[in-house]
Amino acid sequence: MINYQAFFSRVAETTQGSAIRKMGVMAVKVPDMISFAPGYPDPTTFAWQDFREIAQEILSGADPSVLQYGPTRGYRPLLEVVGAILRARGIQTAEENRLITTGSQQGLDLVARALLDPGDVALVELPAYTGAITAFQNAQVTLAGVRQETDGIDLGDLEAVVRRTRAAGRRVRCLYVVPNFQNPTGLLISRHKRLQLLETAAKLNLLIIEDDPYGALYFEDAARAEDTRPIKADDEEGRVVYLSSFSKTLAPGFRVAWLAAAAPIVEKLDFGKQAADVMTPALDQRIVCEAYRRGVYERQIPTLRRRYQDKRSVMQQALRKELGGLISWPEPRGGFFLWVTLPARIDADAMLPRAVERKVIYVTGSAFFVDGSGQNIIRLSFSLPSEERIVEGVTRLAQVVTDEAARI
Amino acid sequence: MINYQAFFSRVAETTQGSAIRKMGVMAVKVPDMISFAPGYPDPTTFAWQDFREIAQEILSGADPSVLQYGPTRGYRPLLEVVGAILRARGIQTAEENRLITTGSQQGLDLVARALLDPGDVALVELPAYTGAITAFQNAQVTLAGVRQETDGIDLGDLEAVVRRTRAAGRRVRCLYVVPNFQNPTGLLISRHKRLQLLETAAKLNLLIIEDDPYGALYFEDAARAEDTRPIKADDEEGRVVYLSSFSKTLAPGFRVAWLAAAAPIVEKLDFGKQAADVMTPALDQRIVCEAYRRGVYERQIPTLRRRYQDKRSVMQQALRKELGGLISWPEPRGGFFLWVTLPARIDADAMLPRAVERKVIYVTGSAFFVDGSGQNIIRLSFSLPSEERIVEGVTRLAQVVTDEAARI
Repeated sequence: MINYQAFFSRVAETTQGSAIRKMGVMAVKVPDMISFAPGYPDPTTFAWQDFREIAQEILSGADPSVLQYGPTRGYRPLLEVVGAILRARGIQTAEENRLITTGSQQGLDLVARALLDPGDVALVELPAYTGAITAFQNAQVTLAGVRQETDGIDLGDLEAVVRRTRAAGRRVRCLYVVPNFQNPTGLLISRHKRLQLLETAAKLNLLIIEDDPYGALYFEDAARAEDTRPIKADDEEGRVVYLSSFSKTLAPGFRVAWLAAAAPIVEKLDFGKQAADVMTPALDQRIVCEAYRRGVYERQIPTLRRRYQDKRSVMQQALRKELGGLISWPEPRGGFFLWVTLPARIDADAMLPRAVERKVIYVTGSAFFVDGSGQNIIRLSFSLPSEERIVEGVTRLAQVVTDEAARI
Repeated sequence: MINYQAFFSRVAETTQGSAIRKMGVMAVKVPDMISFAPGYPDPTTFAWQDFREIAQEILSGADPSVLQYGPTRGYRPLLEVVGAILRARGIQTAEENRLITTGSQQGLDLVARALLDPGDVALVELPAYTGAITAFQNAQVTLAGVRQETDGIDLGDLEAVVRRTRAAGRRVRCLYVVPNFQNPTGLLISRHKRLQLLETAAKLNLLIIEDDPYGALYFEDAARAEDTRPIKADDEEGRVVYLSSFSKTLAPGFRVAWLAAAAPIVEKLDFGKQAADVMTPALDQRIVCEAYRRGVYERQIPTLRRRYQDKRSVMQQALRKELGGLISWPEPRGGFFLWVTLPARIDADAMLPRAVERKVIYVTGSAFFVDGSGQNIIRLSFSLPSEERIVEGVTRLAQVVTDEAARI
């Protein structure tokens, strides 16, 4: 019997699967489970008919490159589409500034490996997106958390954490932020603070890794397009690595995402991607590219804004009705999530098996905090279930929470 | 102006793009270039009509998971298909032993990161596939080369290199081999040697990373199915991590590949994949799965064997005619490549610009040798160009080589 333990790298010894994905896997196995856990987009919004027609056309065989190896940087017409999307969001780029990635998760992985050495410290928000936490940890990077205020990251705390980390002799060069409708809190960094953040990053000589999957999905009753203007749009220095994706707007199954950064950084990420997967699948890049050209993307966005706004409203209303004075959350102005604080004495991790029993599931807040806090917080995703299922799920959750509050 | 150099990780500082991909990019830009460089499959062999019909059916929207997030491990019915393919090649696995990867390149990347620490030594053949070299180097692993004989890896040299490396206080735990129609040499490890290799690996306590993209593509005039029996098929101990792919049999644009290994290893690779790209694109997994179910894979294989055998014969014949006594190569019994030794005084790297001038391109042998040798060798891929273009390309190449031989 081989002792595999002896063959694992230090990374492999320490890495664990993502808590969110574990819960996702658990959830799908139980019949009638209502899952508020994974941030899956609503597949009834996908432009099935368009994708089908496009696939039909491009799989004719007339263009062999549709199923062939292609450039690591990305399918050139798709790189142009990405340039147009970036431009519409206020970000000017040349082709040398763009890279197609196999989902933004790959972008994070490539960035972590190209910009951080094992033992470095990287900064993330408290709380932060678990996929980023995982990517950094997989590069053997230590994470330090920066507090958030209601309008996003706390710049005073950012400075304090950087100074403290450097005083302790640790190297810290990157900050990871999700300025638009952050996963998990739903928070939006204010415009003023974005500009201040750029100044602070310059002062502290940090690169900013700006992850923006939800920027287009603001709720028209609570935010405007200009509220979501990326930090990268005002980055004259080339200090921001900007990531975004078609996963939340067209479909996640394509795994087509992109990033924009200074050319020397993109060149290094390109080398990393050559070693990581050679290229993002050709067919998916084509379908996404052609969907954009046919106006599918532009047509989808307003529909998605309304759809997710409605779902958010339904979930908020149900939560207010069922759990009124017991819980609270910052009202999200876009995105997929409610970040719900339970009574302080409730431990969301301990409560989870009882929620599963009642056939409702959430992600525990602790999964998002690199400082071990968040015990009495849960992330509820309203993006996937239908409005009816949201209401039913909240009813189930309310029973779990009220029982738990009574029990403890 | 930001000094990006100061932000790069040690990996990013040292990594370079792949020589093969650079040449591939260069080649497509020149009109009328005949490229013997990249090992691209022949897209006229792709089952376009089947893929088109399948895409048409699965994109109906009836099954939302076709474009949704899904399990990192892979689409379950595809994992079953992979189980059947493995079984047909003599490898018994349970589902816990299998993982779908985004191309075998991702498999190599995951393996390198899960099984090797920066500073470790990994063993590769002399010469070895550049994609594996890149993946290992990207994990900051040092590579040591093991000589090959005409029937594959030299086991005496393997032992000597391991003992020498360990005596020098370096850790060495993995050997990477391509037993079937190796890229770049086309060599096949003999059956006897495969069994010996398993014994040697057990004795030296090495894991074997067996990469088998070409195993199904033997040439019926020179090899039999049993000659390609994977090392993994006789691996009773769980010492072999086996990788294979649909890239050379269905199409590379899907980026759908798989690996088989002991469950504790697969679990670690799964964690790594969660951080790397969450999942292999859902649509591509579905198309490949459905193509297999409809018999496309089984139908393709014999056609591909004949097609590539014919192309090999055409290239060999042309080379013999044009460069008869000047060059030599081991006759490949499968796969995509001829590994051609030029007169000793010719430097294939120095000759390359003159080949490009004549509109023919190859990969220089030095790209495949981790010990810096291979200066007078070139890898010629016969898989992509038509037979007419192969003949024309060899004529061009012959002029370049004869000129070079006369010049030096």
